Amino acid sequence: VSQAVSGEERAPGAYGALRRLWGLLRFESRAAPPLVRPDLPRDDKAKLRQLMRDWLTARDGEVSARAQAAELGYLYLELSPRGRRRYLKVLKEALEVDGEDLARAARAFLESPDAKSYLELREAVVPPRVRFLKMLNSLPSGFKFLVDLRADLLSFLDGAPELTELDYDLQTLFELWFDVSLLTFEEISWDSRASLLEKLIEYEAVHKIHSWADLKNRLDRDRRCYAFFHPKIPNEPLIFVEVALTEGIPASIHELLDEEAPLQDPDKATTAVFYSISNTQKGLRGISFGTFLLKRVIDDLTRHLPRLKTFVTLSPIPGFRRWLFEEGIKHLEPAELARLEAELPALLDEPGWHHNEALAQALKEPLLRLAACYLLEVQEGGKPLDPVARFHILNGARVERLNWLADTSPSGLDQSLGLMVNYLYKPDELESNHEMFFQEGKIAASPALRRLLRRTKRETA
Amino acid sequence: VSQAVSGEERAPGAYGALRRLWGLLRFESRAAPPLVRPDLPRDDKAKLRQLMRDWLTARDGEVSARAQAAELGYLYLELSPRGRRRYLKVLKEALEVDGEDLARAARAFLESPDAKSYLELREAVVPPRVRFLKMLNSLPSGFKFLVDLRADLLSFLDGAPELTELDYDLQTLFELWFDVSLLTFEEISWDSRASLLEKLIEYEAVHKIHSWADLKNRLDRDRRCYAFFHPKIPNEPLIFVEVALTEGIPASIHELLDEEAPLQDPDKATTAVFYSISNTQKGLRGISFGTFLLKRVIDDLTRHLPRLKTFVTLSPIPGFRRWLFEEGIKHLEPAELARLEAELPALLDEPGWHHNEALAQALKEPLLRLAACYLLEVQEGGKPLDPVARFHILNGARVERLNWLADTSPSGLDQSLGLMVNYLYKPDELESNHEMFFQEGKIAASPALRRLLRRTKRETA
Amino acid sequence: VSQAVSGEERAPGAYGALRRLWGLLRFESRAAPPLVRPDLPRDDKAKLRQLMRDWLTARDGEVSARAQAAELGYLYLELSPRGRRRYLKVLKEALEVDGEDLARAARAFLESPDAKSYLELREAVVPPRVRFLKMLNSLPSGFKFLVDLRADLLSFLDGAPELTELDYDLQTLFELWFDVSLLTFEEISWDSRASLLEKLIEYEAVHKIHSWADLKNRLDRDRRCYAFFHPKIPNEPLIFVEVALTEGIPASIHELLDEEAPLQDPDKATTAVFYSISNTQKGLRGISFGTFLLKRVIDDLTRHLPRLKTFVTLSPIPGFRRWLFEEGIKHLEPAELARLEAELPALLDEPGWHHNEALAQALKEPLLRLAACYLLEVQEGGKPLDPVARFHILNGARVERLNWLADTSPSGLDQSLGLMVNYLYKPDELESNHEMFFQEGKIAASPALRRLLRRTKRETA
Amino acid sequence: VSQAVSGEERAPGAYGALRRLWGLLRFESRAAPPLVRPDLPRDDKAKLRQLMRDWLTARDGEVSARAQAAELGYLYLELSPRGRRRYLKVLKEALEVDGEDLARAARAFLESPDAKSYLELREAVVPPRVRFLKMLNSLPSGFKFLVDLRADLLSFLDGAPELTELDYDLQTLFELWFDVSLLTFEEISWDSRASLLEKLIEYEAVHKIHSWADLKNRLDRDRRCYAFFHPKIPNEPLIFVEVALTEGIPASIHELLDEEAPLQDPDKATTAVFYSISNTQKGLRGISFGTFLLKRVIDDLTRHLPRLKTFVTLSPIPGFRRWLFEEGIKHLEPAELARLEAELPALLDEPGWHHNEALAQALKEPLLRLAACYLLEVQEGGKPLDPVARFHILNGARVERLNWLADTSPSGLDQSLGLMVNYLYKPDELESNHEMFFQEGKIAASPALRRLLRRTKRETA
Repeated sequence: VSQAVSGEERAPGAYGALRRLWGLLRFESRAAPPLVRPDLPRDDKAKLRQLMRDWLTARDGEVSARAQAAELGYLYLELSPRGRRRYLKVLKEALEVDGEDLARAARAFLESPDAKSYLELREAVVPPRVRFLKMLNSLPSGFKFLVDLRADLLSFLDGAPELTELDYDLQTLFELWFDVSLLTFEEISWDSRASLLEKLIEYEAVHKIHSWADLKNRLDRDRRCYAFFHPKIPNEPLIFVEVALTEGIPASIHELLDEEAPLQDPDKATTAVFYSISNTQKGLRGISFGTFLLKRVIDDLTRHLPRLKTFVTLSPIPGFRRWLFEEGIKHLEPAELARLEAELPALLDEPGWHHNEALAQALKEPLLRLAACYLLEVQEGGKPLDPVARFHILNGARVERLNWLADTSPSGLDQSLGLMVNYLYKPDELESNHEMFFQEGKIAASPALRRLLRRTKRETA
Repeated sequence: VSQAVSGEERAPGAYGALRRLWGLLRFESRAAPPLVRPDLPRDDKAKLRQLMRDWLTARDGEVSARAQAAELGYLYLELSPRGRRRYLKVLKEALEVDGEDLARAARAFLESPDAKSYLELREAVVPPRVRFLKMLNSLPSGFKFLVDLRADLLSFLDGAPELTELDYDLQTLFELWFDVSLLTFEEISWDSRASLLEKLIEYEAVHKIHSWADLKNRLDRDRRCYAFFHPKIPNEPLIFVEVALTEGIPASIHELLDEEAPLQDPDKATTAVFYSISNTQKGLRGISFGTFLLKRVIDDLTRHLPRLKTFVTLSPIPGFRRWLFEEGIKHLEPAELARLEAELPALLDEPGWHHNEALAQALKEPLLRLAACYLLEVQEGGKPLDPVARFHILNGARVERLNWLADTSPSGLDQSLGLMVNYLYKPDELESNHEMFFQEGKIAASPALRRLLRRTKRETA
Repeated sequence: VSQAVSGEERAPGAYGALRRLWGLLRFESRAAPPLVRPDLPRDDKAKLRQLMRDWLTARDGEVSARAQAAELGYLYLELSPRGRRRYLKVLKEALEVDGEDLARAARAFLESPDAKSYLELREAVVPPRVRFLKMLNSLPSGFKFLVDLRADLLSFLDGAPELTELDYDLQTLFELWFDVSLLTFEEISWDSRASLLEKLIEYEAVHKIHSWADLKNRLDRDRRCYAFFHPKIPNEPLIFVEVALTEGIPASIHELLDEEAPLQDPDKATTAVFYSISNTQKGLRGISFGTFLLKRVIDDLTRHLPRLKTFVTLSPIPGFRRWLFEEGIKHLEPAELARLEAELPALLDEPGWHHNEALAQALKEPLLRLAACYLLEVQEGGKPLDPVARFHILNGARVERLNWLADTSPSGLDQSLGLMVNYLYKPDELESNHEMFFQEGKIAASPALRRLLRRTKRETA
Repeated sequence: VSQAVSGEERAPGAYGALRRLWGLLRFESRAAPPLVRPDLPRDDKAKLRQLMRDWLTARDGEVSARAQAAELGYLYLELSPRGRRRYLKVLKEALEVDGEDLARAARAFLESPDAKSYLELREAVVPPRVRFLKMLNSLPSGFKFLVDLRADLLSFLDGAPELTELDYDLQTLFELWFDVSLLTFEEISWDSRASLLEKLIEYEAVHKIHSWADLKNRLDRDRRCYAFFHPKIPNEPLIFVEVALTEGIPASIHELLDEEAPLQDPDKATTAVFYSISNTQKGLRGISFGTFLLKRVIDDLTRHLPRLKTFVTLSPIPGFRRWLFEEGIKHLEPAELARLEAELPALLDEPGWHHNEALAQALKEPLLRLAACYLLEVQEGGKPLDPVARFHILNGARVERLNWLADTSPSGLDQSLGLMVNYLYKPDELESNHEMFFQEGKIAASPALRRLLRRTKRETA
C-alpha cells in the first residue's frame, strides 16, 4: 500500500501527514481552498502579504487570529520549493519590526537609560514574526512544522541572505523550545516501536544501516542506543548515539558492523564504544545536544554496568583527505614529500589502493603522522578544523589512538582515507582537558599520539 | 552479532533464552552440572527416574521441592529430541497415579456413592504429574516452557501413544491457564515493538510475510491487526488476525498483499476483510481462541469505525485439491467427467496452468461448482471436512462467495487450486446460523452459492 | 455524590458495579427482567433448576449457551443472601455429575485399568458445574464474581454442608486460575492510584488504617508496600505486606504507626520489618500466596537496598490470650500459679491493666515465658497452634524475640495480651529450618527464646 | 513519619526536596558547605556578587560554568526570605546588561539601520541573567525551581521595584518554556495517583476541598476533572478545572458539593458545568492557560459524551461586594436607595443575614439588578472589572444567569454576597461574541440578564 504520491509541484516529504491534518482543520473551519498557486507568483505574493497584514491587525481577536494563522500555515504546506522561498521572504517583510518604533525606543534609551526605557527597547526589537511563529507552533505538530520550515529556510539562505533575520527569530525560539532541559533521554532497543526504529534507518548519518537485520545487530544485547526526544515530537529522535560494549578499544568499524560476529557478554564488557552519533533535524542547526547526550549516556551506562571503565569513540576524520591534499603535504619534509609523490596520487586515483599491500604499507606511517598533525595542530578560529575532532575535543575528550584501515567503505576512504580515531572520555578529566584547551590552547592526547606528532615535527623541523 | 549456536546435540530454538535463565538459577542455588547426557541413555533414564521419585517424596519441604523441580526442568532443556522423548516417558511413569489408591477409591465410591467417597475419588484420579507440571510452571517463563514442551510431546505422540495421559494432564492445565478470560486482546500496529512484529513474520501461517516492507504494508492505515496475548507470555501473540479495510468484498488476495496498491481511506471503508488468521503455538493444540478473537475484533471495529457494515473473510480452501482428486471427481456427471479428463491433469502437472487462458476458462465453471459442493456438502463426523470451512461455519458465518484465481501463489495453487472463499460474518445471524447447523445440519450460504450447488446436483442427478 | 443504595432485599456491596455491567449486557441481548424473586422461593427455585437444565442440554450451541449463562449469572446478582444460598444449592444439584456414568466408568476401570478406562474415569468425575463456572468466568469481571461467590458460599458452608462439593469445584479452578505464577508482583506507593490505595484502607486486617494521613505515613520514603495482583482483577491486591525500613529490630508497633515519628533515611536502613500482612479475598481461602510474597519482597529489597541485612516481622500472637486462660496456666508451677492468681484476672477485667506499672512488672516475666512456651511448644496436628506462628515457622523463619507491651491497642491486648513477636527470615536458613521442622519437629528459635523456654520447663518440672 | 522540619531561618516548603537533591549534586562534586549565611548580610552579598562575576567570565568552560551555576542555585535554596530578596537583587545587578555595549549598538542602529546593526542591537539588549537562568533551568527540577523563584520574586516586587527587569527576564523565558503547545492535557480521576490528587486538595482555590471524601465526590462518575501539565513538572497540574455533568444548569454550588447527593447518570447528562478553575503556580502569573484548557475540555467532552449540549460555568463574582459598597449604590435611584439604606448594612454586619427570609427577599431583586449592572457595564481599561467576568467574557462566553443565594459559604458571602453567575460557552458563538466585544464593546448576555439590566437603567434614568 503506497502513500498517495503528492503532486510534483509540491515540496516533497516531511509535510505529508501535516498537510492531511491541517487540511482537516481547515475543513472543520470551512476554509476556502488554497488561495495561492504552488509557485506563489507575483500577484499571489501580494495576496499573501495582505493576509499577513490582516493577521497582524486582528491581534485582539485571538480566536480568529489563530484561524488565520492556521490558514497561513496551511498555505505554506501547499507550496513548491520556489513558492516556499517566496513565502518566507514575504513573511520576513510583512511582519517586520516597526523601524520607527524601534528607532524611537533606541533614542529614548540613549537619552535616559533607565529601567523603563530599557524594557521598552527590549520590547521594540522583537518583530511580530515571533508572535506569528509562536501561533503556528501551537497548531498540532507545530514543533515539527517549524523545524522543517527552518530546514527549508537554511537551504535558501545562501541565495537569499535577507532571510537571516527570520532565521534569527527561529533560532531564538528554538533555543528555548528545544532547551536540553525539556528533552527526554531514552534508550532505544529492539523492543522499541517499529515506527521509531525505521527513523534510525532513515537518519543514521555516519555508518548507513542497510537492512532491518543490520539494525537488529546494532540493538543486540551487547549494544546500546540512546536518544534525546522532544516531548512534542515523540516519534523522532533529535539525536542518537550507537554504543558497542566490548572488552577493548576496537580498531575498526567493520568488526562492530559485522552481523556474523559473535555476541559479547555485556556483563563482561569493560569498554563502551560510541561508534555513531547522528543529529537528525537539519532545522535544528546550531542547537547543540551532543555533549549532553554523551554525558547522560556515560552516567546511565556507569549505573547499570559498573564494570565499564573505558568510554571511547570510534570516529571518522571527515576533513582529513581534503586537508591533506590542500594543506597537509606542505607539512612533509622535502625528502619524504619526494618519496610520497609517487604514492599519494593513488589515494585519489586508485579506488582499491588499500588492497595493494605494498602501497598501503608505504603510506601507513606518513599518513598516521599527518593525521596526528591534522587533529592536534590544525585549527580555525581557535578550534580544531576537523568538525568531529572539534566536537569531542571541546567536550574534553582526549585524542587516544589512530587506527589504520579502520573504515574502508567508500565514504570512509573518500573522507578519512580509511583512518579512524578513538577519542577517550575519561569522566574525571573532561573538565580539566576542556579548561586546558581554552586557557592554554592545548589538546589532550595520548602519549602515543604525542610521539607521532613529535616525529612529524622533528621531520618538518 | 549472531547468537552463539547451540550444540547440535541439543534440540533447536525456542528454549535458548530459557536455558540461559534457568542455568543462572541453578548457578545461584549452586547446582551441579547436568547429571545426564543429551540422549538420556538407559542409565541416565534410571537416574532421572530416581530424581523424580525423590521429588515426589520430598513433598512437605516445599522450598527444596521447588529447587529439585527447577533442576529437573533444566535437565529437559539440555536434552536432544531423542532425550526429550525419553524424558517425557520417564515423567509419565515415575509420577503416575497410584493405581491401588485409585482402585480403592473407585470401589469405595461404588459401594457408597456419597460426597465423601466422591471427593476422594476425584482426588485419587489426579496423578502427581499435575503437581510437578504446576511447579515447573511457577519457574520464570514457565508457561512458555510448558507450551513448548507440549509441542515436543505432540510431535512424539504418534510414535509413543503411552504419552497420551501426559498430554491429557497438560491439556487439562492449559484449558484453565489459557482460558480465554485470562487473555488480553491487543491491537498490533506499526507502532508495536519490533521484537513483537518479528514474531508476526515468523508465525504468519497463511500468507507468508516476505519482508519488513511487506509487514509494514499489512499494518498501514487501511489495515488492522489484532491478537490475543497471555499475560505471562507477553511477547508472543497466541493467535492473530490480519484485517483489510476496503470498499467492497475483495476477490483476490493479491490486491491485498500488493505493496504498491494505493492506500484506502479507512474512514470510507465499508468492509472489514479477515484475510489471515494464524495460531502460533503448536503446544496449545485443542485450546481454541479463534472464535473469541473474531468476535472481539468485530466489536472493536464496529465501535471505532461505525461505517463498517460488512465483516467477511478471504480464506483458502486448503483441503480442496486433495479432496477433488480423491473424491470430488466422482461428483461429476459422466459427460463432464469425460470432457475434463483432458484438462484436470493440468492442475497436477502444469505448474503454470492458470496462465493458459483457454484451459483456465474451461476449468473455471466446473471447479467453482465442485468447490461449492466441497464446502457445503462434504462433512466428516457431522462437521465440514475442510478445516477452515469447519471453523467459520461453526462460528455461524455464511459461505458467501467463491473467487476464481484468487490466490495463485504456489501454496494457493497447491492446496486450493487458486480458489478462495469469502465467509460472511453477519453479527445478527451468527447465532441462528450456528443453531441451524447444529439442529438441522444446514449450512448458511449465499443465494449465488446455493445456485452453484443446485447446478452441481442437477448435473449429478 | 452517594452511590444509589441497593434495595434491602439485595445482598450488599461487592457486586454493585457488576450488576450494572451485566445488567447492560442483558439489555443488549434484549433479556427479559429477572425471572425470580430475591429470596428465591420454592417455585422460583424450580424455575432456576429448569434454566440450568436448559443450559446443560444446549451445549452444542456455544453462543446461546453463553447468553444463558450470562442470564443465570445476572440472576445471582439480584438475589438476597437467602436467595443466594438457595441458588447455590440448586446449582450444586442441577449440574451434578452423572452418577450412573461415573459408576460405569469406575467399574470399567476396575475391570480393566488401562489408559482408556483411566482417562474416561478422569472425565467422568468432573461435574458439569465446572463448565458452567468457567462460562461465568468468561463474562466481564468474571474472576472477581466467582471469588465473591465463593466468599458467599464459604459463609453458608456451616449450615449447608451439601455445598462442599461445589466449594471443591471452585477451589480446584482457583488453584489454577490464581496460581502464583499468574500473579503480578507490584510495589504500592503514594504514587499509586487513589482507587487502589483506598483498598488498602479497606482491607488492612492487622493494624487498621485510620485515615489517609495514616496511609501516607505507611507509604513514606522509609516504608515499602508490596502486593500480588491477578491480571484480571487489576484494582484489588490479593495480598499485601507493609514494610518498615529501620536501623534495628523494632520492639513495638506504636513506633512504626506514629505519624509524627521522624523519617528514617532508607539508604541507612539495615533492617526490613514486615509489620502487616493482609489477605484480602475471603473467597480465596485455601489458596496461599503469603510465602511467595515474602520471598519476592526479600529479593526485591535486597536488590534495591543492598545495605539491608535483617528481614524480620513484627507480628501479633493472636491465639495467646485464649490459650493462656484455657490451657496455659496449667503450665505454671503451683507456687507461681498461686502468686499469679491475684494478678491474672486483671488481664480480663481491667482494660487499662498495662498502665498499672506494678501489675505490669509482676506479669511481664511469667507472660513472656508462657508466650515462649505457646509459640515453641504448643502444636495441633503437628503444626504450631497459633495461626501466625504456623505461617512463619512453616516458611522457615526463626522465632527471634518477644516484645512486652508492644501492641496496647484494644485488639492487641485482647488477642495477644499486648505482646508481639519478631520472626526472623534469614534467607540462608529458611530451607534448613523448614526441613528441620518437618523432619525433627524442631522449631528454630533464638538463644534468648530458648533460655526463656528452658526456664519455663525448669519451673514446671 | 514527619519530614524533618527545616530550620526556621530557611524559607518554608516548596524547595525541600530540591534542597536535598541539589545538596547531593554538590556533594558529588565535592562542593564546600554553603558560603553565605541565610540572611545574606552585607559581606555575604559581596561574596555572592563575586561568585556571579566569576561565573560570567568563565563562560568558555561550559562544564565548570555549570558547576558554578549549580552552586549558586544551591545557595539560593539555603537562604531565608530576607536573604532571597537580597540574592535576587544581587543577581539583577551582577549579571546586568552591559550598558555601554547596548548604547553603542543603539547608536549604530540609529546611524545605519540595517540587518547587521539590527541583529547586534537585538543581541545587546539581552542581559547575561538570561543565560544564567537557563543554566539553572537545566539542573534537575530546574523548571519548578524557577517557577518558585519567580513566586518569591513577585512577592518582593512591591517593595523592590528594581527587580522588575529580572521579572521581565523570567516572564520572557516562561512564555516559551510554558507555551501552551508544550503542555499536556490530562484527565484527572480517582484512578490518578494519590500524590497528584493531594495537590488538588492543596491547590483548589475556589471551593476548598475539605477531605479525601470530598475529593472523591468531585471525581465520581458524574464528574470530570482536567488539567494542563508541563512535561518537566509531571506531578503538578498547572491549572485544573472541575466539571459536573448534570441535566440542567445548576443554581447553587451546594448541590454540586453535597457528598450525599445522588449520583447522576453521565450518559444522560445534557450539561457540563465548570464549577471551579484553579491556577496553581503563583510563579506563572501572566502566563495564561485557562482559555486553552476550557477549549480542550469542551472538545474532549463533546467527543466522549455526544449528548452534552450545554457548556456553562457556575462562577463567583468575587469583586461584587466591594464594588457594591464603593460604587454600586450610586447606581440606585434615590427612592430605592432610601429603602435599602435600612437593609444593606445587614450585608456587612449580620453574618447570617441570608437566613433572615424577609431581609433576603427584600434584597434579592435589587442585588440581582446591581449584579447584572456590575457584570455587564462596569469596566476598567476597556475590560470587565470583575476578574472572573473578564476571563469568561474575553473568552467569548455569554453571561447567562444570576443565581440568588447560590454560595452561602463564608467566602461566597464575603466576596459575592452569595450570588453566583453562569457563563455560557456556546462553541459556535464564542468567536463572534469575542469579536463583538472587541469591536463594539458589547458583552453577550441572555435576554433575562438584558431585562434585568434594562430595569436597572430605567430606574436610574
